Amino acid sequence: MKSTMMSVPLSVNAIFNRMSKIFGEAEVISRLPDKSLRRHSYAQIAERAMALAAGLEAAGVRRGDRVATLCWNHHVNLECYFGIPLAGAVMHTLNLRLAGEEIAWIAAHAKDGVLIVDDVLLPLYREIAKHYEFSRVIVVQLGDEKVAAGAGSYEDFIKPYRGKSFVPKPHDENDPVAVCYTSGTTGRPKGVVYSHRSTFLHALCASAPDYFALSCRDVVLPVTPMFHANCWGVPYAAVMNGAHLVLPGPHLHAEDLLDLITETRPTLALGVPTIWLALIQALDANPGKWSVPKGMRSLVGGAAASESLVKAFSERGIDCVNAWGMTETSPLGTLSFVKPKVSEAGHDEILRRKSFAGIPAPILDLRVMGDEGEMPWDGRSVGELQVRGPCITGGYHDVEPDPDKHTADGWLRTGDVATVDSLGYMRISDRKKDLIKSGGEWISSVDMENALMSHPAVHEAAVIAIPHERWTERPLACVVFKPGKAISTDELRAHLATDFAKWQLPDRFEFLSAIPKTSTGKYSKLKLREMFPH
Amino acid sequence: MKSTMMSVPLSVNAIFNRMSKIFGEAEVISRLPDKSLRRHSYAQIAERAMALAAGLEAAGVRRGDRVATLCWNHHVNLECYFGIPLAGAVMHTLNLRLAGEEIAWIAAHAKDGVLIVDDVLLPLYREIAKHYEFSRVIVVQLGDEKVAAGAGSYEDFIKPYRGKSFVPKPHDENDPVAVCYTSGTTGRPKGVVYSHRSTFLHALCASAPDYFALSCRDVVLPVTPMFHANCWGVPYAAVMNGAHLVLPGPHLHAEDLLDLITETRPTLALGVPTIWLALIQALDANPGKWSVPKGMRSLVGGAAASESLVKAFSERGIDCVNAWGMTETSPLGTLSFVKPKVSEAGHDEILRRKSFAGIPAPILDLRVMGDEGEMPWDGRSVGELQVRGPCITGGYHDVEPDPDKHTADGWLRTGDVATVDSLGYMRISDRKKDLIKSGGEWISSVDMENALMSHPAVHEAAVIAIPHERWTERPLACVVFKPGKAISTDELRAHLATDFAKWQLPDRFEFLSAIPKTSTGKYSKLKLREMFPH
Repeated sequence: MKSTMMSVPLSVNAIFNRMSKIFGEAEVISRLPDKSLRRHSYAQIAERAMALAAGLEAAGVRRGDRVATLCWNHHVNLECYFGIPLAGAVMHTLNLRLAGEEIAWIAAHAKDGVLIVDDVLLPLYREIAKHYEFSRVIVVQLGDEKVAAGAGSYEDFIKPYRGKSFVPKPHDENDPVAVCYTSGTTGRPKGVVYSHRSTFLHALCASAPDYFALSCRDVVLPVTPMFHANCWGVPYAAVMNGAHLVLPGPHLHAEDLLDLITETRPTLALGVPTIWLALIQALDANPGKWSVPKGMRSLVGGAAASESLVKAFSERGIDCVNAWGMTETSPLGTLSFVKPKVSEAGHDEILRRKSFAGIPAPILDLRVMGDEGEMPWDGRSVGELQVRGPCITGGYHDVEPDPDKHTADGWLRTGDVATVDSLGYMRISDRKKDLIKSGGEWISSVDMENALMSHPAVHEAAVIAIPHERWTERPLACVVFKPGKAISTDELRAHLATDFAKWQLPDRFEFLSAIPKTSTGKYSKLKLREMFPH
Repeated sequence: MKSTMMSVPLSVNAIFNRMSKIFGEAEVISRLPDKSLRRHSYAQIAERAMALAAGLEAAGVRRGDRVATLCWNHHVNLECYFGIPLAGAVMHTLNLRLAGEEIAWIAAHAKDGVLIVDDVLLPLYREIAKHYEFSRVIVVQLGDEKVAAGAGSYEDFIKPYRGKSFVPKPHDENDPVAVCYTSGTTGRPKGVVYSHRSTFLHALCASAPDYFALSCRDVVLPVTPMFHANCWGVPYAAVMNGAHLVLPGPHLHAEDLLDLITETRPTLALGVPTIWLALIQALDANPGKWSVPKGMRSLVGGAAASESLVKAFSERGIDCVNAWGMTETSPLGTLSFVKPKVSEAGHDEILRRKSFAGIPAPILDLRVMGDEGEMPWDGRSVGELQVRGPCITGGYHDVEPDPDKHTADGWLRTGDVATVDSLGYMRISDRKKDLIKSGGEWISSVDMENALMSHPAVHEAAVIAIPHERWTERPLACVVFKPGKAISTDELRAHLATDFAKWQLPDRFEFLSAIPKTSTGKYSKLKLREMFPH
């Protein structure tokens, strides 16, 4: 007996069809560099995306060619998300937080052809151009700056094809649609290449009620950059479900975001914890200045929101939800939704579980591997987190297979150290390389950071290992106080002593004005280690 | 550039893993023939499903073999949904509403081997056994009846394998998991064979917030039989999301369902409109006797709930949602969720749109074909509804391709006549064969039935064509009054005259005590035509 089902490939273009035919009336609000808002309907974005596809085709872009983008979050970037795959090409989202030379290395590695770049990012482009030459540069005019000589404007590029229909290039479901390079905390950045299949499946899966919960009644604000792991898949998933989008452009300071939130009333906002920390500070410093929609969900990724951050949000009527993922996982891996069993256990237990990485999405398998094989799901047994599934990368673009990255039986080694409990909640103890080995025992830097940040005087905290002759390594705690607040090393040590054994307590504290961050907003332990080598 | 994503097949077993590992604490409540409730955790069902798989393997069942079920909705049926695919076999859900001889024909056509049958259905089994011999019969003991000689009990069958793990048989994602025969209003029943791929995709898609909206906080009551189009995919989708299940067993009278609803507090119930009509009548006849959970969603399929039914539900605090689908479409095709644009237009517009078939699910493409090609989405242009996608059947088991069923370019011809409006709402005008052709013009039987049922005295109405020498066909209206109510033909005609032209009004009315139904609870126009041939 054989299945009688049709053989129809999964396709990003099917999501595009929903944008163009089913949800044409939904709205995309973009904030420009001058802080004005520009509004488009889905139907308008779809029409412009088809013109982009036709323009790319006319410019000689062929199936599988890379079209790079160096853009903030705005409507043209959304057009690229759909227009580039319509033309059969592969969207390469360049990370504008990196140095020009590094971007050039990545563009060269991916063999990028056409580049679509914001006018406000032309200074960065000029740095890149010293090291890499794109075949063609198309400039998105958002501000008033004159377009650089030799570079045509995006509007001119799509103009001849406006108002015409475009027949999407035929493709296999395993054909690539987008490539994203990992931020590369160790070694060179590596390219993860998403397919039509993985992108469609991820959008469907992320939409589910216990995950991103995307409906046509939502207004979604991705603070997450559109160059970071496909903006967590939000552009695809939001469009699939007809949700309104608010794209914040280049202004990402807490005050700017609160202005935008007050005006556009999002129901869901997504970003890294550092963004939300700043938001809370600004809200507290200016009572009554802004209004955040009651019950707005704030989805936190990149690093877990601590219990104290979840609590701080909850006290302000915002539902803070943790999610875990990587560029390598499309990125949704787990999300900390509240099971009925957790609700029954009361408010404290809800806050505790919400600070976990969460429950695996339906699209991936997850296991915790110790030295003697798979660890039980008991909430205590620690091991390396490994994942497997159709939206997980099985390798990297033009990089030899690496047993440090993938196991022999085909699982991705995430480099995270984790536990899973009997209700299926995964909790990251640490990055493998951030664990502190002291006297033959392990200390979790993440646990200690969360404990430090639960003190009312502490704004941010990061813990790193420093080499020690006798104990191998010892923890060093870097602490940023809230404005106008400061406490002593002894007080901090006393605060930690409720959760940690005496030998685990840091011998040394450093008080900083800010913790250095990576290009994706995470604490940069690499930079801290450079600052405090011993 | 090639995608770097892992090649991992989509699989029903991945849903099973969620049942066994992630949502082990979720509950399945089954109502037995003696009306008592039996409770199992997901973990218990998963353990028993693995024992079933091991038992089937030991009994010689091999990859692709058909294992038939003839069961009401209960926990063992749910075990079959997962245990049979774990063993690499194909679940064939036999329709217990059919006559024994017809079931035997279907079982023979599918070449069923093992049969799993409820003890309370043994009389029907004996009718089938006169025409078809299964290789082995396993009896589910729900009541007290002694198991028939020669047939082992289900509990004995799984006993040797209880408490042991079972490694799922390896499979391709296009391998079959289940077969379901269409009810066959024309010609012989035809087998639709679902694959791992289509079943997983359908579960993911049906879960979305604007479709079944399934979360781990839901309690789902499928009144829909588990032998009907995979119970609309609910067993897979509910388990994927960890929702509690209430399986109503053989007692499906309105009073029985209301007892069950009052006790188990479902948040979502699914069934055909006739079930809900009876529910409303019983609620009205016995005020205060039952309590339906406030805001319970009632998902209606099989035929559309009329505006008056949607309204009646809404007045009782129940959110009635229409969905359209077929055995051929896995079955979710469209669902009538409320877009913001519709909400803005007010209460009447909400009720009107909710009575439509609804908006296409992300997993399928939909078009309306007229004589001159594809019709515009203007809410007026009528044509044949055609669908395409990875969860749509491209043929039937062991049946030659038929241009009446599939177009040359690979679309399923649904046999429904429909319009789609500019917001993407599809509305079925009629079954193609139920349209009434009078004097060269068409009359929609569905529109006339809805208009009749909007009269407060009318309980049910079905309209069929009878042959007419001069006008080709003329409408005949079959009407069932509510208890204690009756009105004249003239009054009915006057009621219709507000929506229909004079020439469209039925010349003839027949008053019945009930409209005959098909095995799936739809109006049987075939039987009505036999009753009123001219």
